[in-house]
Amino acid sequence: MATDSKKMVYFFGGKKAEGNGKMKDLLGGKGANLAEMVNSGVPVPPGFTITTKVCNYFSDNKGKMPAGFDSEYSDSITKMEKAVGKKFGDLENPLLVSVRSGAKFSMPGMMDTILNLGLNEKTVEALATKSGNRWFALDAYRRFIQMFSDVVLEVEKALFEEILEDVKKSAKVKLDTELVEQDLEIVIKKYKDLVKKQTGKEFPTDPMTQLAMARDAVFKSWNNPRAFTYRRMNKIADDLSTAVNVQAMVFGNMGNDSATGVGFTRNPSTGVNEFYGEYLTNAQGEDVVAGIRTPKPIIELKKEMPAAFKELKDITDNLEKHYRDIQDFEFTIEQGVLYMLQTRVGKRTAHAAVKIAVDMVKEDMITKEEAIMRVEPEGLNQLLHPVFDAKVKYDAVATGLPASPGAAVGKVVFTSEDAVKKADEKVILVRTETCPDDISGMEVAQGILTTRGGMTSHAAVVARGMGKCCVAGCEDIKVDEKAGKLIIAGKTIKEGDYISINGSTGEVILGQVPTIEPTLSGDFGTLMGWVNKTRRLGVRSNADIPRDAKTAAGFGAEGIGLCRTEHMFFDAARLPLMQKMILVDSEADRRKALEKLLPFQKEDFKGLFEEMKGYSVTVRLLDPPLHEFLPKTKEEAKELSKKIGIDEKIIWSKTEDLHEFNPMLGHRGCRLGITYPEITKMQTKAIISAACELLKKKNVKVVPEIMVPLVGNVSEFKDQKDIIDATAAETMKEYGVKVKYMVGTMIEVPRAAVTADEIAEVADFFSFGTNDLTQMTLGFSRDDAGKFIKVYIDKKIFAADPFQTLDVDGVGQLVKMGIEKGRSVKEHLKIGICGEHGGDPDSVKFCHRAGMDYISCSPYRVPIACLAAAQAVIEEKDSTNYSSK
Amino acid sequence: MATDSKKMVYFFGGKKAEGNGKMKDLLGGKGANLAEMVNSGVPVPPGFTITTKVCNYFSDNKGKMPAGFDSEYSDSITKMEKAVGKKFGDLENPLLVSVRSGAKFSMPGMMDTILNLGLNEKTVEALATKSGNRWFALDAYRRFIQMFSDVVLEVEKALFEEILEDVKKSAKVKLDTELVEQDLEIVIKKYKDLVKKQTGKEFPTDPMTQLAMARDAVFKSWNNPRAFTYRRMNKIADDLSTAVNVQAMVFGNMGNDSATGVGFTRNPSTGVNEFYGEYLTNAQGEDVVAGIRTPKPIIELKKEMPAAFKELKDITDNLEKHYRDIQDFEFTIEQGVLYMLQTRVGKRTAHAAVKIAVDMVKEDMITKEEAIMRVEPEGLNQLLHPVFDAKVKYDAVATGLPASPGAAVGKVVFTSEDAVKKADEKVILVRTETCPDDISGMEVAQGILTTRGGMTSHAAVVARGMGKCCVAGCEDIKVDEKAGKLIIAGKTIKEGDYISINGSTGEVILGQVPTIEPTLSGDFGTLMGWVNKTRRLGVRSNADIPRDAKTAAGFGAEGIGLCRTEHMFFDAARLPLMQKMILVDSEADRRKALEKLLPFQKEDFKGLFEEMKGYSVTVRLLDPPLHEFLPKTKEEAKELSKKIGIDEKIIWSKTEDLHEFNPMLGHRGCRLGITYPEITKMQTKAIISAACELLKKKNVKVVPEIMVPLVGNVSEFKDQKDIIDATAAETMKEYGVKVKYMVGTMIEVPRAAVTADEIAEVADFFSFGTNDLTQMTLGFSRDDAGKFIKVYIDKKIFAADPFQTLDVDGVGQLVKMGIEKGRSVKEHLKIGICGEHGGDPDSVKFCHRAGMDYISCSPYRVPIACLAAAQAVIEEKDSTNYSSK
Repeated sequence: MATDSKKMVYFFGGKKAEGNGKMKDLLGGKGANLAEMVNSGVPVPPGFTITTKVCNYFSDNKGKMPAGFDSEYSDSITKMEKAVGKKFGDLENPLLVSVRSGAKFSMPGMMDTILNLGLNEKTVEALATKSGNRWFALDAYRRFIQMFSDVVLEVEKALFEEILEDVKKSAKVKLDTELVEQDLEIVIKKYKDLVKKQTGKEFPTDPMTQLAMARDAVFKSWNNPRAFTYRRMNKIADDLSTAVNVQAMVFGNMGNDSATGVGFTRNPSTGVNEFYGEYLTNAQGEDVVAGIRTPKPIIELKKEMPAAFKELKDITDNLEKHYRDIQDFEFTIEQGVLYMLQTRVGKRTAHAAVKIAVDMVKEDMITKEEAIMRVEPEGLNQLLHPVFDAKVKYDAVATGLPASPGAAVGKVVFTSEDAVKKADEKVILVRTETCPDDISGMEVAQGILTTRGGMTSHAAVVARGMGKCCVAGCEDIKVDEKAGKLIIAGKTIKEGDYISINGSTGEVILGQVPTIEPTLSGDFGTLMGWVNKTRRLGVRSNADIPRDAKTAAGFGAEGIGLCRTEHMFFDAARLPLMQKMILVDSEADRRKALEKLLPFQKEDFKGLFEEMKGYSVTVRLLDPPLHEFLPKTKEEAKELSKKIGIDEKIIWSKTEDLHEFNPMLGHRGCRLGITYPEITKMQTKAIISAACELLKKKNVKVVPEIMVPLVGNVSEFKDQKDIIDATAAETMKEYGVKVKYMVGTMIEVPRAAVTADEIAEVADFFSFGTNDLTQMTLGFSRDDAGKFIKVYIDKKIFAADPFQTLDVDGVGQLVKMGIEKGRSVKEHLKIGICGEHGGDPDSVKFCHRAGMDYISCSPYRVPIACLAAAQAVIEEKDSTNYSSK
Repeated sequence: MATDSKKMVYFFGGKKAEGNGKMKDLLGGKGANLAEMVNSGVPVPPGFTITTKVCNYFSDNKGKMPAGFDSEYSDSITKMEKAVGKKFGDLENPLLVSVRSGAKFSMPGMMDTILNLGLNEKTVEALATKSGNRWFALDAYRRFIQMFSDVVLEVEKALFEEILEDVKKSAKVKLDTELVEQDLEIVIKKYKDLVKKQTGKEFPTDPMTQLAMARDAVFKSWNNPRAFTYRRMNKIADDLSTAVNVQAMVFGNMGNDSATGVGFTRNPSTGVNEFYGEYLTNAQGEDVVAGIRTPKPIIELKKEMPAAFKELKDITDNLEKHYRDIQDFEFTIEQGVLYMLQTRVGKRTAHAAVKIAVDMVKEDMITKEEAIMRVEPEGLNQLLHPVFDAKVKYDAVATGLPASPGAAVGKVVFTSEDAVKKADEKVILVRTETCPDDISGMEVAQGILTTRGGMTSHAAVVARGMGKCCVAGCEDIKVDEKAGKLIIAGKTIKEGDYISINGSTGEVILGQVPTIEPTLSGDFGTLMGWVNKTRRLGVRSNADIPRDAKTAAGFGAEGIGLCRTEHMFFDAARLPLMQKMILVDSEADRRKALEKLLPFQKEDFKGLFEEMKGYSVTVRLLDPPLHEFLPKTKEEAKELSKKIGIDEKIIWSKTEDLHEFNPMLGHRGCRLGITYPEITKMQTKAIISAACELLKKKNVKVVPEIMVPLVGNVSEFKDQKDIIDATAAETMKEYGVKVKYMVGTMIEVPRAAVTADEIAEVADFFSFGTNDLTQMTLGFSRDDAGKFIKVYIDKKIFAADPFQTLDVDGVGQLVKMGIEKGRSVKEHLKIGICGEHGGDPDSVKFCHRAGMDYISCSPYRVPIACLAAAQAVIEEKDSTNYSSK
């Protein structure tokens, strides 16, 4: 449709608007949407939009209006008056309007809305009569003066607040609503006096003058410093300009044939396709939400005002069809006439989102791709974990980091041992921080609460892996493990007292909050079916033990992207062997200890491989510094000495020897395998033996991907690959079978990303370890960053916690560089990610765009990652189709 | 000169060779050099070179020789026989030759040299008669058989060794030289029997047959697996081929008119221009170095054989002129005839290098640029620090890292306090590791010895800054500070015992080794003058206190590239104030404590600025984590409590609060200034006040460059820059003067390098902090890397310690990226380096190539950096001019 380029004012109202939804440049976003609504048959209060071109002219010509403007303007006012059956300044049925700015993009710094324009000493009484509520009319007038004076006359807001406070003090009341009509009359008088004193002029009484002044103020606000700065920062052109929207006010408190309400086209909690909402007769919109009167269910409107109800139902049905999504709407019925005040896409629970999306596909309203886009990946968490019963109100006494989702209730215990002892009761394990020793306690606890550490602290990572609720780094809590108590907000909680924690919000609550178990409905399965057909990225899971692998497989994981072999060593039966291996001095003694560990490792791998038959399993060689396996205190050294028969002095001296200032950057990862090649040999032997035995005895085929951690230099990788290949060849010869295996590396040291071309020459695959890559690229220790990261996010230095959502601008550049350099040498190099970011939707989308082959995440995040991966495909196809949502 | 492309054998000898020095492709490196020597009038034993083309033909034609080869070959043999006056197989004066391979590049895996070819049962007796030494002749024959059999006949070497051992056992002697002639005859017989048994053939007796076999063996060795692998690894073309060099043997033990010796054209220790060397009459070359007979000073040859001496002197003078550098030569006089066996550029001490370079410029032998290239930058260290007296022999009992050069002798002390108490004696401070508290002890000690930490540990960095000898990370030493003893190699050293340490080699010696103080000769100054005119890079120094700044200025530093403000806080008067600042909880209390620190900081800066008037001084804002300033133990907390009147429990609880798992990646750098803006304000105020006061009172102008540490995100920098600019403006207003200042940032976090374009938009300068950049890019904690870095260097994973020499392939890529991105936004962005690498010659050259404006290093390394910077300029101009050296 061609636009009449000279037209300056666009009327909307009745059944047809002069503009339409595509004219955002000319009418601004708001004006175009109003026109669009009218054109789709929605009865909105009539009005008109003055174009952005007029604003441009106004700015360029010192506040003059273009030739011919006045007549278009007054024509539109007349049309509006006719459409609504009211007149500006009329003493019986006065027209009141709202005035709003409206640029192409919503923009802070622009002029606020002015409501009830058209009121003066006379029309206020007409409004009083008409509504039968003089207090309401006076209050509306008072608010109008204040708003108009602030934004149009530039009289300081605070001065009006002072007057209001003074009058309230004199009247000895606390709330605005406690003022009586006489008080409001005094306020109005004083407001007007203030305006006169400040501006030297009377407050304007003529509605047409009021309107012209408000219009010009909108235009001027385009060039106020705040708007100007905002545009510069967001690179928005200055000549885009703003439009002005003038719209008739309507009132739901004009008698018993008037009403006001809100609603949804479907149930936003359950997703059920039912008309949902509430309303009040003879009331203002504010009354519905204020809670003074109890609103009625919308279905009662059918009896009370059948015609209006039918119209409302038809309109909202059409709106849902038009916008192809659940609508959240506001309406007012003024003396029997229905007006829609707002309609927008409705917010909904994750549960509802899934149901609505699947239903709408069945109803042929949207495509499967649109359905996939309609569900927030992160929201799926609500479907996969227990939640607090939404009907129960509770008060949080402290808030930590929402480290692993779900809700949990239990008795407080302070040690892993106590958790295990009391495993028949429900317990919450509370620790300053957890360490690998705590695994068994974490396994039996309902949830974990720590007072230190961030979103990727040990507690958080392990809890997410287990799908267990965790609140981490709750610094408001002081734990006194020895005394067996903790202090929250001045209250002492003893061991055995109940607490509840919400790992989705970080809240900590005293006592027991009832929880609801998740139920995965059939709709969820349907949606995931579409998701899995759509996504290109493979989705694997991080899993260290067969149980986790099973969980992951249940959620649809296609292989294991990260098996952390060290977690196998913390088991009670194996830890002493591991410790012995570390404590002995000669290579021969180390070999002996490793020989004893070998059968355990082999069995672990067999278990994992069987769960994942047909898929690839990426096994990372030993990664943490060896001191993590040794005692932390002299007492623990004494105990260990009794257990393994090595002098406690030797144990403690070794512990001190192995102490590191920055273990994160210390003797770990492939540095262990390079300095103690026998460890790499043992682990390779265990992996290949497991694969050989499964193939021989059960004909189970699996492709082990042996992953060398912390490589920064191709020579490190070569050193380890040589050992692995030699050991694998030897082992296969022993078994007399051949298994396919790959040898690849983590890309987690910045130097590895920078020299990825060299590494790709010899590596079969890359797996980005973005936890460590983030730590090193940003210089943030994830265990320590909690001390400043909140300030950083408050100050907007980072938009999000870089350990949760990949820092695309920084770390992301290294990831892209690593991929490009790697593939420049080996075109089809297999590339994945196994950091915590593999379960974060935004980061998954980045991985898709960067061209990875797969992501790997904790078992419970597999569906989330799948959904994000599918969305990435659709977003890539054509972002414009969905961005308008 | 055109090469006769069909010629296959090139004769050399007499005054003229058929080939020349440029024919390396055809004659190989060795053959071309022999021809070159002959052409420059040097008498070398005559011989000939068979070309690489012949080798190619031989390889391509199953061991056949090209047509016409035989006649050229026998012609050349005849020429050689004539030139030397001997004949193959002659019973009076038999010709013996050496046969050597010689490709264009020296290449391991190729055939070894065969000496004394031409010997058999008969000629050996002729040699015996001629030399008057039958033992020598028999021994030469025995060796020839063994060598020829090994490399030509491929009989295992070990079998010959067995025979020799057996004969020695029968003769009941231990050394080869104790065997008598009869024994050697037995050996020869058994050797021949062995060859017959192993090969089925007699050992060849005909010299011409011997020669042909040796020649073919050289050609075959071109394609042996070791040579092949070497070529593949080093990307050398297979068709390059090798030449064969056949050269007459000459003997210095043919009577009293024969002699052999070695010498230098100048004194290689002092550099003095004097003929230098030693010789033996009637002796073999081996005898000169074997130490059985005492060689005579070369000047005596003048009396003994005046003609030969004159010839030798003239030849070596000419050689020095020809090669334009000091020559290290070997010669033999056989029956009055002088032969030069070898001449090469002579090794020299740093002292001599400087003198020779400067002298040769004065003698018009070389250019100033060449003189600059002739001195090893690292060698200057010998000139700037005390060294052990080279005449005294000593045994090291342990070796640590050569962390800071120089030699030191003193009594062992174990604490900084003891060092200060005994400051009137010479002491060596021995610590497990040092920390900032130890500064005062380090200052008074002669040297520092630590048992932990690497080349960039605290001890190493601070010692280098002080120009003080330090051996770090000497893990063979166990320190027991409490018992006041240390154990080295099983020996107990008590407090007060003397030890000596060599910071240039890492050696630790018991007792006192005499030292020699450095004397900077005039030649050094002359050379540095040329250096400073040549270099493009600015050279600044790292200095924290006025005394260091003064030292640096004395060495020619052009400004301060890094002043670490935290070092100012460890002074006894200030530390308690700093501690108080950390221990209080409210911002107001922190401000109060900072107010008290302000005057101290201001005075420090005034001192520095005055020393550096006219230059820029880069001041880095507070960098280390705050816990570094707090007590390490509860006892220390108690002591501090007494001093500053804060409850020890509060002190200890704060210490625990501030504990970090990885302080390197923790709450430090600009993260401090962002969370505690009042620290940045105080420091800025101190810097700007100091500059204002100096300008006002003394008219001293200095440009402070305020440097924000650890920036990884442009938003961090903006946050700090806003505070700095506001505080600076306020301070200048107070003083009523304006000073020029800049605000820039360290580039030390990988993310900063990756996003350098964003940062450059707002930063005035970049300074690469390559210590931390290396730590983060490689994931190496410099305090912990000692545990594996030796293994890494042994395994050639890194060619050098990346904390000493910048890892150009990894970290260097980020540096280059940072520079490119920075300058893409701000073309003339000032860029420097202030890491430890600023004092490492190779790294300085990299900085030059990468386009930096300046480097900054410890004061004592300024001359080294200057020299390296000048060499970088020259290398860039035309590397080919100097690479042949």
